[in-house]
Amino acid sequence: MEQFWTARPKADQPQWLERRIEFDTYAATRDFLERLNDFCEAEQRFPDISFGRTYVNLTLRAAADDQPLGPADHAFASAIDGLL
Amino acid sequence: MEQFWTARPKADQPQWLERRIEFDTYAATRDFLERLNDFCEAEQRFPDISFGRTYVNLTLRAAADDQPLGPADHAFASAIDGLL
Repeated sequence: MEQFWTARPKADQPQWLERRIEFDTYAATRDFLERLNDFCEAEQRFPDISFGRTYVNLTLRAAADDQPLGPADHAFASAIDGLL
Repeated sequence: MEQFWTARPKADQPQWLERRIEFDTYAATRDFLERLNDFCEAEQRFPDISFGRTYVNLTLRAAADDQPLGPADHAFASAIDGLL
């Protein structure tokens, strides 16, 4: 997981995780977005998602405001990796 | 159209259009994204799209790099309005 997601703003108390994913085609981008949205809806947790034709950027904030990221946040990020 | 989309970076030669749309529910956000993605795929034109649970932000750059926005860009933006 560490090689994919970047903790922000600093390593010792990150407040959010970011990941950029690139795809070869728009169809692949849409397929991933569909799985991602289904998963977010099931979990009722909604990261900030940006996308274009062949990329998706994800920003995952700590579940609790003003708290550092915890194991549940990393597990959520890892589950998104599993959608790829 | 002018009341919805903001021309950037300046009015006399805008290079991109922006619009933020808010929704009441995640289901409404997803419904709109689905229509938007179908439309973008049909047009083979892919604006930058950001979204969360109840919002979508759109950034539409001029079809030709380093050119001001033209009638085709405004028509594309207006067609997106029509998806709402």
